Order: sequence, then structure tokens, then C-alpha cells
Amino acid sequence: MSNFFEVISQDLSSKARLGILKTDHGELQTPAFIFCGTKATVKGVLPTSLIEANTQIILSNTYHLMLQPGAEIIAKSGGLQKFTNWNGPMMTDSGGYQIFSLGHGSVSEEIKGKNQTGRNKSLLKITEEGASFKNYLNGDKILLTPEKSIDIQRNLGADLIFVLDECTPYNVDKNYTEKSMHMTHRWAKRCIQNFNTDNKNFKAQNGSAGLQKLYGIVQGGVYSDLRRQACEEICSMDFDGLAIGGSLGGTKDQMYEVFEFCSSFIDPSKPVHVLGIGGLDDILEGVEKGFDTFDCVSPTRIARHGVMLSKNKNKGINLNNSCFKNDDSPLDESAGLSIGKSYSKAYLHHLFKSNEILGMTILSIYNIWFMNNFFSEIRSSIHDQKFASFKKNILSNFN
Amino acid sequence: MSNFFEVISQDLSSKARLGILKTDHGELQTPAFIFCGTKATVKGVLPTSLIEANTQIILSNTYHLMLQPGAEIIAKSGGLQKFTNWNGPMMTDSGGYQIFSLGHGSVSEEIKGKNQTGRNKSLLKITEEGASFKNYLNGDKILLTPEKSIDIQRNLGADLIFVLDECTPYNVDKNYTEKSMHMTHRWAKRCIQNFNTDNKNFKAQNGSAGLQKLYGIVQGGVYSDLRRQACEEICSMDFDGLAIGGSLGGTKDQMYEVFEFCSSFIDPSKPVHVLGIGGLDDILEGVEKGFDTFDCVSPTRIARHGVMLSKNKNKGINLNNSCFKNDDSPLDESAGLSIGKSYSKAYLHHLFKSNEILGMTILSIYNIWFMNNFFSEIRSSIHDQKFASFKKNILSNFN
Repeated sequence: MSNFFEVISQDLSSKARLGILKTDHGELQTPAFIFCGTKATVKGVLPTSLIEANTQIILSNTYHLMLQPGAEIIAKSGGLQKFTNWNGPMMTDSGGYQIFSLGHGSVSEEIKGKNQTGRNKSLLKITEEGASFKNYLNGDKILLTPEKSIDIQRNLGADLIFVLDECTPYNVDKNYTEKSMHMTHRWAKRCIQNFNTDNKNFKAQNGSAGLQKLYGIVQGGVYSDLRRQACEEICSMDFDGLAIGGSLGGTKDQMYEVFEFCSSFIDPSKPVHVLGIGGLDDILEGVEKGFDTFDCVSPTRIARHGVMLSKNKNKGINLNNSCFKNDDSPLDESAGLSIGKSYSKAYLHHLFKSNEILGMTILSIYNIWFMNNFFSEIRSSIHDQKFASFKKNILSNFN
Repeated sequence: MSNFFEVISQDLSSKARLGILKTDHGELQTPAFIFCGTKATVKGVLPTSLIEANTQIILSNTYHLMLQPGAEIIAKSGGLQKFTNWNGPMMTDSGGYQIFSLGHGSVSEEIKGKNQTGRNKSLLKITEEGASFKNYLNGDKILLTPEKSIDIQRNLGADLIFVLDECTPYNVDKNYTEKSMHMTHRWAKRCIQNFNTDNKNFKAQNGSAGLQKLYGIVQGGVYSDLRRQACEEICSMDFDGLAIGGSLGGTKDQMYEVFEFCSSFIDPSKPVHVLGIGGLDDILEGVEKGFDTFDCVSPTRIARHGVMLSKNKNKGINLNNSCFKNDDSPLDESAGLSIGKSYSKAYLHHLFKSNEILGMTILSIYNIWFMNNFFSEIRSSIHDQKFASFKKNILSNFN
């Protein structure tokens, strides 16, 4: 365990910390951001560009890949890294988030790349055994069990993998959240049992993939007592890492409350991942609570819609705005990335107006660099015992 | 003129020749292929990737750029090279081809990026003055005259520019073709007059753009006598380069006949461009006739549909085919480009099945490299006096 994650520096005025997370595909400096490469590709970005933008790690989604191309094909290719030509660390989720979102309509729209009206009925049933859903590509009925999620993630071969959990949304009550949490804990034990059966031999079985590390997920919604119980139960199990999942509330205040609950009860000796968080302010709050990694589709998704990240604008800068039509200033003159200096806002405005995919590519690379640079600054500030003032500066310029 | 284009080696058994074409943004080794960057971007490909794939020159389209973002915005940015961050040689067409195609339905579909049923009525009228058409973005009526086409291309600032011609399609008769050809010649004179007015001062006026070179276009359809007349008239005018345009017939035999007509009557002291030709066999035929440059959307367009160029397959290799689902062999093990060796056919098959734009990017870069490599081999064969056997070898493996 100690080989896998090491805290190398601790902020004296908060729980913020610097760490190193070691995988068989390289080390992560934490805090770190994890970029989404949903269907085994960060949309429109070559791995060489990911490297130029200082990317440490990317995440792919089990749900999407089990349906297309299928985990066996990726295993046959030697695992995700060989398949995608991204040779750095990788994470896969368990498939749970997408499947349970099928009952709520939003993720399925993203999955199919189009907006739909009405609810999607792909989620059929959740039972103790697992989750049944319909394959959106061919209509087949599929049962995803905790064991099967681990098996699939074994085949995909990412370095960091997750237990199957039920990700409870904001709109369910405490009673449902509590029952679901207990089932998630029973599923967690089944995942560990499956995982431990052969993990030590896994590297030998699967040529290119490294020894995988398993993360447990803390559920419990917005309820302090449930989060405490979830932390205690998940931390008592034999996980390599821990993650905070499920509903983080409907407001930032609620989210930060949930961060606080979890931070109080979670085991600090293990790396802590926060699922689905990408706002700069939220990241700073999470880092302050001692959380180490964060993933979110937002930096690359907003890039594909023409929005450039900025430290001064909470929602980024929308290059579709007509004020950029004539603005031949570079995207970001001070960027430590040639793309920021070489392309003008007018050019990007033109590419988005023309529906040219190169606009998505250029802005995705920029936003990836931006997030990596932001995390690099976070790490420097922790190293220099200046995290509190760094956070304050960022938030005071935010509007 | 001699500074602009120099023949450095001549095949002894055909008209095939090696040349150097000098622009203010660098030299071209000819024969050379010119890739389409229609709306000021080779779709989905960063300029750095174009360079890695050995690209010498790209072409943008006046018609598209005059409508979006408008030539003035590009001029204000310092010309196409500064605007796009592609710092090598560039060509623009005159706008004619797209406008006249509006009357025939196909190019407008490409322009709007969708297939349409029924004919597009954007082309309003062709008169001696110029061509009237409707702006497909806002419905405005626009008159493109020969002078205006030159003015716009001045603002765009490419190194090699074209006269406005009427590009006659295959389905018009000889009478129409002949009348149209004469009007094209009158338009050519008006273009030259406009161009010569201030070309020598143009470099000083337009900071980044180089001294531009003007190409005349030989029309005349599939008729030997008209092609001869067109060659003689166009060659008698003060052009820097010559181009073969218009209908090249409905079959390969007719195309090669037109090549032969033009080759017999065209001035060999000037560089000769063939408009819109991208088939490997057709290129070899054109090179044999002494033609120096070729442009076509096909290498990148078929890439965006999942088709990989190959010396053994006339229509390329369609990676959408299910036989590639499990094929983890590299795209092209022997490619002199890391992308050919690093990505498997199974991965590209997956990206296209998943509608992931990275598939378009990877395959576009590969096809660009392929074409550049093909032309490099053509040049070596001419240099070594082995062009005839090179051509024979390629054609004998073609199916």
C-alpha cells in the first residue's frame, strides 16, 4: 500500500497535501486532475497532444467500452494503454454512474451524442444481484453485477479501477439513499472478493496491463450520518484508494458540507478521489479537505462548445461571442503551451462559427493544459505553504 | 518568372519532370500534392501534424472564406498563414468552382456539411460582369466579379492565386462550353489587369503575405479543339502559372485524353496545376504529361469516412468493415510516420463505430502522409529516370 501512495508534504493550515501515486504506467503528482477519455479517446485530442499539455492521467468509462468495442477486444489488444496509444496512467469507472443515470435521462443523451425528449427507459431494474439495462446499440438485455464490473475492468486493464456502486441522485429521499448505501457496501465486498481472487497474478496474465488498484466509493448523499457510516464501512475494507461519489447536493454550500463530512471520517492514509468535480472553486475546496484527485468531463466538454477556461471567469470565456470575431489577440499570451500563443481568438471564433472540428481540438488541448497548469500551481502553493493565499487569490478574482 | 519556377530534372521517356516552386513562405518540390483546407483549416488536423506528415502546401477556398469569416478579417490578422498558424506555402482558388457548382447541387451539400435532396438555387445568374449567388449563411445577394475575386484573394494573402473562371460541368454541350470558354478568357484578362495594378507593391502593403503569383485556368471541356484554343489563349497571357480546369470527362479514358490535349499545347516553362484530381492512377497519368501540382479533397474526405489510402487498393481500405473489429495490426507498419505504426486497425474501427472525431484526425494525418510519401516516391523515380517503371508497378498492383 505504502508503495502505491505516499504523502510527501502537508499544508500546515488545512488538510491539503502533496502526494505521489505510483502506477505501473508512471507516477502521478497529486493533487491531480483526471481527464475523461470516455470511449477510449479524449475526444479529438491525440495522446501526443495530451502529453504536450502535461496530462498525467486519463479515465475511460466501463459502460461505454463494454458495449463498444467490448472489453475482450481491448484485452486482446493488450489493454487500454496499448489500444489507445496513451501510455500513461489510466483509470476506469465501474459503469454504475452511467447505468443509473439511464433512469434519469441526462447521461444517455450524452452517450448517444444527441438530445432526446422524454426519459430513456434503458435502465430496467436494480436488484441485489446487479443492474439490468438495455444495450442502446442493439437492444440486448445486460446484467451488470459487481463481479462482472471488476471482470470487465480487468480486461480493460486500467491502473486504477472502481467498485460497482449505486450512484444515488439528488432527487431520492434519505430512506432510499440509506438502503442503497447498504447495498453498495454489500456490492463493495463482492467486488473486493472478486478482485482479490487473482489480482496478484493479473499482471502475469495480461501482458501489458499493470497491477491494478481498487477504489471503494463512499455514498450517503447529503446526509451527514450516512456519509459517516459510508466512510467507516468503506474505509474498513481492503481498498487501495477511496472515492467520494453520489449526490453532492444541489448547491455549492451543500457540496462543501458533504466534502466536510467525508473529510472528517475518511482514512487519510489512502488516496481520495472525488468523482465528477471540475469547477475551479470546487476543486480548491476539495484540495483543502485533503482530496487528491478529481475527474470531470467539463474542461473538454465546454471546449467542444467553444468555451475556454480562465482563472477570472467561473464559466470560462465563450469564443462564440461576436466580440471575438475581430479579436486577433492570442488565446492566452502567457500560456506555457504553444497552442495558447499561436492561435487567435478570431481564428477560434471562425472555426466554431464554421463547425470546424479543429476548433474543438485546439480548445480541448488548451483547456487540458489550463487544468494541468492549475493543478501544478496548486501543488506549488502546497509545497510553499501558501495554499490558503493561493485559494483566496483565485476566488477573489472569480466572477 | 525563372525565380518562381525551375525545372531541375526531366524524365527522358515522358514529360514527367522535377521542379522547384518558390514562394515567400517556402519552396515546393514538384510534383506535389496540395491538400484542401477549405475553411482555413484542414479539417481536424493541426498544422504541427501537417508538418509531421511532410506537407508542403495547402489550399483554402475563396468562396467559403469570403462568406465566413470574410476576407477583411483574415487580412487584418495578417493573411491566411498568420490566421491559421500554417506557415508554409498556400494556394487559394477563385471561388468560381464552388459558385458554379451551386447550380448543380453537389458542392453546396459539401459546403453545408449535409446531404440535401433537390437542387440548390443559390446560383442566381452568370453574366459578362460576373456570377450572382445567394450567401447561404444569410441570404444576401452577392456578385462575384473577376476583379472582386482577385481583391478577395489579395486580402486572403495566399502565395498562389487563381483567376475567376466559369468551371463548365460535364453535362453542358460544346456550344455552351465554347461560349463559356471565351467569357473565361475575357475574365482572365480582367483578372490580370486588376492583379498587375498593384501586385508589385502588395507585399509592402500586406505585412505578412508574400508576393502573390497568379494562375490562369485552361477550360474547353472534353473538346480537343477548344482545349487547344484555351491553352493558346491562356498561355499567351501574362500568368505565373497555368491550371487545367473544367470537365475532364466522364471516364478515365476521357480524362487522360484531355490531359493529352492540354499537355500538347500548354507552355512547359510555367508550372502546371491540375484542379481537383486525387486518384493515384490519375496523378501518375498527369505527372507523365508534365503536370506539376494536383489538389483534391479526397485524401482527407475519405479519411473522415474511415477510408485509408493504400497503394494496393484503388478505393482505399474501409476501416468500418467488420473484418477490422479484431485486427490489432498497425495501420501501416512500414509507414515513415509514428501514427501509422502506433494505432491499430481495431482502434480506428472502434473510433469510427463510436463516431469519435479522433478517428477522422488520425486517418486524415495518415492519408496526408501517404500522399506526401507517394509524391516523394514519384520525385525519386523521376530523379532516377525510373518513372515509367514506378508507374507500371503502382498500376499493376492496383485493384
